[in-house]
Parts: sequence; structure tokens; C-alpha cells
Amino acid sequence: MDRDQCLALDASDPLRALKDEFVLPDGVIYLVGNSLGALPRRTPERMRQAVEDEWGAQLVGGWNHAGWYDQPLTTGDRLAPLIGAGPGQVVVGNTTSIAIFQAVAAALRLRPDRRVIVSEVRNFPTDHYIVQGLTRLLGGGQDRYEVRDLAERRFEDAAVVLLSEVDYRTGARRDMRSITAEAHAAGALIVWDLCHSVGAMEVNVSGDGFAGAAAAEADRGGADFAGADFAVGCTYKYLNAGPGAPAFLYVDPRHQATAENVLSGWHGHAEPFAFEEDFRPAEGIRRFAVSTPHVLSFAALEATLDIWERVDLAQVRAKSMALTSLFIDLVGDALELVSPADPTERGSQVSLRHPDGYPVMRALIDRGVHGDFRAPDILRFGFAPLYIGYADVHDAATTLLEVLDKELWRDPAYATRLAVT
Amino acid sequence: MDRDQCLALDASDPLRALKDEFVLPDGVIYLVGNSLGALPRRTPERMRQAVEDEWGAQLVGGWNHAGWYDQPLTTGDRLAPLIGAGPGQVVVGNTTSIAIFQAVAAALRLRPDRRVIVSEVRNFPTDHYIVQGLTRLLGGGQDRYEVRDLAERRFEDAAVVLLSEVDYRTGARRDMRSITAEAHAAGALIVWDLCHSVGAMEVNVSGDGFAGAAAAEADRGGADFAGADFAVGCTYKYLNAGPGAPAFLYVDPRHQATAENVLSGWHGHAEPFAFEEDFRPAEGIRRFAVSTPHVLSFAALEATLDIWERVDLAQVRAKSMALTSLFIDLVGDALELVSPADPTERGSQVSLRHPDGYPVMRALIDRGVHGDFRAPDILRFGFAPLYIGYADVHDAATTLLEVLDKELWRDPAYATRLAVT
Repeated sequence: MDRDQCLALDASDPLRALKDEFVLPDGVIYLVGNSLGALPRRTPERMRQAVEDEWGAQLVGGWNHAGWYDQPLTTGDRLAPLIGAGPGQVVVGNTTSIAIFQAVAAALRLRPDRRVIVSEVRNFPTDHYIVQGLTRLLGGGQDRYEVRDLAERRFEDAAVVLLSEVDYRTGARRDMRSITAEAHAAGALIVWDLCHSVGAMEVNVSGDGFAGAAAAEADRGGADFAGADFAVGCTYKYLNAGPGAPAFLYVDPRHQATAENVLSGWHGHAEPFAFEEDFRPAEGIRRFAVSTPHVLSFAALEATLDIWERVDLAQVRAKSMALTSLFIDLVGDALELVSPADPTERGSQVSLRHPDGYPVMRALIDRGVHGDFRAPDILRFGFAPLYIGYADVHDAATTLLEVLDKELWRDPAYATRLAVT
Repeated sequence: MDRDQCLALDASDPLRALKDEFVLPDGVIYLVGNSLGALPRRTPERMRQAVEDEWGAQLVGGWNHAGWYDQPLTTGDRLAPLIGAGPGQVVVGNTTSIAIFQAVAAALRLRPDRRVIVSEVRNFPTDHYIVQGLTRLLGGGQDRYEVRDLAERRFEDAAVVLLSEVDYRTGARRDMRSITAEAHAAGALIVWDLCHSVGAMEVNVSGDGFAGAAAAEADRGGADFAGADFAVGCTYKYLNAGPGAPAFLYVDPRHQATAENVLSGWHGHAEPFAFEEDFRPAEGIRRFAVSTPHVLSFAALEATLDIWERVDLAQVRAKSMALTSLFIDLVGDALELVSPADPTERGSQVSLRHPDGYPVMRALIDRGVHGDFRAPDILRFGFAPLYIGYADVHDAATTLLEVLDKELWRDPAYATRLAVT
């Protein structure tokens, strides 16, 4: 496909107007939206409001009058449709790592007779590290718990299974529905990490998509119910809520009355301002709130949710598959493809392998095409359908091929490692 | 003391120029800086930079080039002098509740043969709630741990003691040094919550004040060492870092190599970007970092630290004691004093009791004097010496006396409770 054909696809793209919602530096093709999303054009003004009109002018009154106190729930309700959840099922705050700790600890308490956590050694490291810290804590330093790798595919005695829907390195996408059913059939609970899927595709934590509270209620209760028990994810990748934006935690309504929030801070209390002596959990999803929300970071999330409310996720997924397929086609066999070749089996990223991946990526960034590198040898390219177009993909692939053909990456300047890769 | 005398004190106040560093709404005397500090005048521009010049222009490169990755440590080092700590002893991030969880869990792991946590039922609720959640988690739902109230004053079998230096309700200040020595003599570790002292007075986690790394090293190692083992606190009260600003965690250097961060997220790893399979803690204070810092919320902390670097805490404490004493004198016996009468025994707040405290406070706020209310009957007034002056105190006391004398609080409009008190 040549560049004119790509421009024609951009012209007929139903999402094309959304690109104007984002600020992107001149001369940059930004293919790292799977790591940190771009700045929405509306965000600076929302931040100014939060700082000057809310904090500056309302001071402590902002807790009542600017909606700060309810931000974890109001943003949770707005985010819920992006993962196939309904109102009262998602709370926002803290970080993905902390949400994983809450979810896995709660799941273990719901399966007190089991001592196995199935995870993936090759899952995003923080998922695995958090499980290691939790099991050390629970075991009093002893091996009372076993962390078993998914590769063994044995769920039969597992308390909880923790998996990512889309793998951060390869972009491979798992079938949430079948694996959830498999875990449930074995009596295990499942926690899905949605960091690399939310905002890139239709996500379906409830198993059948969320079709309103009444339908969901009717559909619940069976042991073979296919929905996730817990899900977590971040908002700073495809959702574009800014560096270090708060994470989200989904808790299936079946578990909300029985699951415990082990990080039982005062914002999860039934009456935080009664200042009672003992923790008494709030009803519903609020019990999973921990403590004072990072209000200024929430403001940027609110700004980007204004955009997402106008986005059709089916269009996002269709464009995402088209963009990643186009990139793979244009790169051809110049590099080994690490991601699945079938677009339905991958997320919105393409991972390629090169033994000198680090300097290749540095050379590419120097020419305005921004991807990132994951040790030891993977080049990652994320395609955020809201602001990346077909011509961008064409130009990125062309530049990559030039860097490889002319061996531009051999410039010694590209060998120096930066702290964050 | 009449208003002219107060104006004279303001004119000779060595901190008077600092008031211009803050934005305060016209007609408001803001005595809630002990809950949420005022907006520094320089903060909006720093926030704009973080949003537009860092995130917007540098995108994911901000992790390397805007210093985001090291923010938890760089802000920790800048904050350290405010609590009598040195470089490499403080990490910033998350919330106070989460830092308490980390500190108490780490302390329990350092005292594996003990099962008692001494806390206070009347401590700020989240401290107590977090301990309850942690002990439930560790006990597997059983009472393997005992949370004993400080009132019993029995430390002899305690693993860890968790106390606030300044009580959030009464403003009473504890003697950190003697209680720390008492806990240590009993073989317990101690975690100090500094939320209501940092930025209001000289805080001294190291027991003798921090006098440089070499002096501190020489002073360490004895069983009777008087320094805190861990300390936590927030930055949104007297430090003025904004609503939901990140918290801090101090870990004594003696414990840094042995204490475990049970929230072992990837940012506490020795090499986060090596993506190793197993958690391997970083050297030093970095192991207590958890995960992606809330970058936009950190920016507001950085702005206010620019101010604090020019502030003499001895002057802050002297003015704080003078302001609170003046307020108490002016109110006289119109209301029962809940705070200690001796200024050396209280923080920078004055708590007064009134059976109809809620409508009294609402009436006062309606007249431009902002304090807050803590159930069931306490009126709290916080005096932030950086932006509150003697004439402000005079005017606030005069307004309070008028509200009481004329029973202005009986207006039914003031009875309606807001969500956040």
C-alpha cells in the first residue's frame, strides 16, 4: 500500500476528527501510546480549573463543592463502559500495583482453603512482584503459598489466577472468556490486568458485555458465570490521562458484599467522617477506596473521559487491527515479528525482534518515530487509534526500513542507555 | 491585645513576606491549613509546565528528561530536612494510609516473634483502620495479632507502636523522643505519623535532628538510639502541596537493608527495566517505592518545596505558638479549650468544644472565617504560620465571639450537614 492509499484511508476514517483532540509535537509520529498516551488538547484548561478555581478558590470546600470526595466513584462510573462494566462496579485511585495487591488479597480471603496463585513469570513484572510480596507477607516469610506459572496450565487447586488480557511485550491477546470459564470451573477466582487493553479495544469484564444493571443481575449467580471476579488497569496508556494517572479496580457485584479491602483506609469506611473506632466497610464498590484521592491527577482523567464518552470502541478496535496489520505488512520480513500475525489475537501494538534493538530504537526516535524498547531485544510500537493514522504508519515503517537498510543505528551515540528504556 | 497591636506584630514578623507566596480568596481568613493548605502562587505555572512542557511536549521521554522516574526520591531528599532526616531516608508517593501499611507491615516482619501492635483507638481513624486490615490479613481472619490501645501504656511485648506526634482532634503534641526511647527499651519498633506536625514545627525523626550523614552515622547503632524507625505523613496540610498530594515514608538507615516493602511493585526493584522474573529490592530508600508516581500531583509538591527551602522552621514554630496562644487568649472562656493550654504541648491548631459545634462552624464560615468541625462537638482552627498573621487571628476570634454572643449559629440553614465535614 502506498502513501496516497494511506491518505485515502485517513480521509474516510470515522475516527479522524479525534486526532484534533490531541497535542502532538511537530515532526513526531508517536507510537508509544501503549506506554504513555498523548496530551488531550482540553486537559491543560481542566488542570488550570482544578488548581486555581477548585483548590485555590474553594480551598478545603472543594471536598464538598468540587466533587473531590466522590472522584474515585464518579470517574469509576464513567470509565466502566470502557471495560464492559456497569455503574457501581469500578473504583479509581492509587496505582495498578496497589490495585493488584487489593484484588489478589481479597480473592485469597474468598478462597481460604487454597494456597496456590496462578500467575505468569512473563507477565508484566509488577504483577508478579506484587504477588511475591503478598505471599511473603501472608506466609510470615515461609512458603505457605505457591505461585505457579500459567505455563503448567493447572488451575485445579488455585485460589486465584492473575493474568493480563494483552501481553506487554508481545502484544498477544488472551481470550478472557474461555480462560475465565476454565478458572471458574476449577473453583478459582480470576483477576484480569487490563492495562494494555483498555482504550484499545472493546473489553468485556462481565463476559457478555454490560447490558444494563437489570440484565446483569438476571445473568448472575451461576457457578459457571463467565465474568471476571476482579480487574485492574491503568489510565495513562490508551486512555491518555497523563503520567502516573490513577488506576482502576473492578469488583464483580457478586463479591462486593463479601470481599475485603485489606488496604482498609478511611475512604472505604461506611462513614468516614463519623470517625468511628473500628473499620466498618462501606456498601458496594466504595469499600475498595483507600484514602485521599490524588485530586490533581484525577482532573486529567476527567478531561480525557470527556473524549471517551464520544468514542465507539468497535471503531477503535477495527482501526487498531487495520493499523497494526498495515505496519506488519509494510515492514515485511525485515524484522522478526514477535506479535501474533492474526490481528484478532493481538492488542494494539506490534513487537519486533532485533538483536541490537536498543540502538535501532534510538536511531528511529532520532528521526521522529517514537517507539520503545523492552529488554533484551524487543522493539515495541503502539498504535493509539484516536491519534494515529494510516499515513503515520506508512511513514513510520518507511523510516524503520531506512534505519535498517542504511544501518543508521550503528552510530555509537545510540548505544548509551538512558535510565528508563 | 487589640487589633493595632496585632498589626504591629505582623509588621515585625520575620515570616511576613511569605504570605505573598500564597493565593487566598478575598474576605477569607483560612484556618484550615491543617486539613488542606492554601495554593502557592507559583504552583499554577509549575502545573502548566508539567502538563504542557513535560507531558505534552516530551511525552514518554519525560520519564528520562523531566525527572519523573526519580521524583519519589528527589522530592524525598528535598522534604527530608523538614522532618529532621537526611538524604536517602525519605521516599514520596501514594497516600499516608498506604505508607502506614508499608511501615507497620515492615516493622512486624522485623519483629517476627511478637504479635502486639500498640496504637490508639483515638488516633486518626485511617491509622487504626489500616492496622485492623493488616492484622486481619496476617491472621487469616483469626485473632493472631492483638491491637492494644496506648492507654494501657504496655509496650513490653509489642512488635510495633504507631502514634501521631500531634493529635488531629485536640492538637496535643507528644514527646517523640521519650516515647520512642520507651518503645525501644521494650524492644518495640515505632512508626510516627507526622501529618499534623510536618510544616508546623521542627520535627526530629532522628532524635537529635539531622546534622549531616557523617554525624548521623556516628550516632547510630546503640539499642537506646532515640530516632524513629519509620515515619509517615502527608504533604497537603501545612506543606501546601495540594488536594491529595503524595505522602512520604521515612525509613531509618538502620532498617533500610533489612526491612521489606510488602507492596513490592516494580519501582522498588533494583533494576525495574531489566524486567526480571523475581523481585529483587533496590538498595536504600528506593526499595520502598511502589510503582508509577502520580507525576502531575508531584509537580505541585515540587512547587511548594521551592518555598520551604527558604523557611526557618524555628521561626515557624515560634510564630505558631504565638498565634495559637493569641487565639486562645482572645476567645477566653467563651468556649471550652480542648487543646493543651501550654503552647509547647500542642501543634499549630486550637480545638474548642461546643455542643452545637457544627452550626457554629457553618455560621463562622459564612462570615469568612474558615475552620472545620470534628464530630461530635469539636471546632478546629489551624494556624499556618506562612500565610496567617496576628491580625487574622484577632479578626477570627472577634467573629467567633460575635457568632456566639448573638447566637447567629441558630439560623436553621446551618444545621444541614454536608458530605464532608
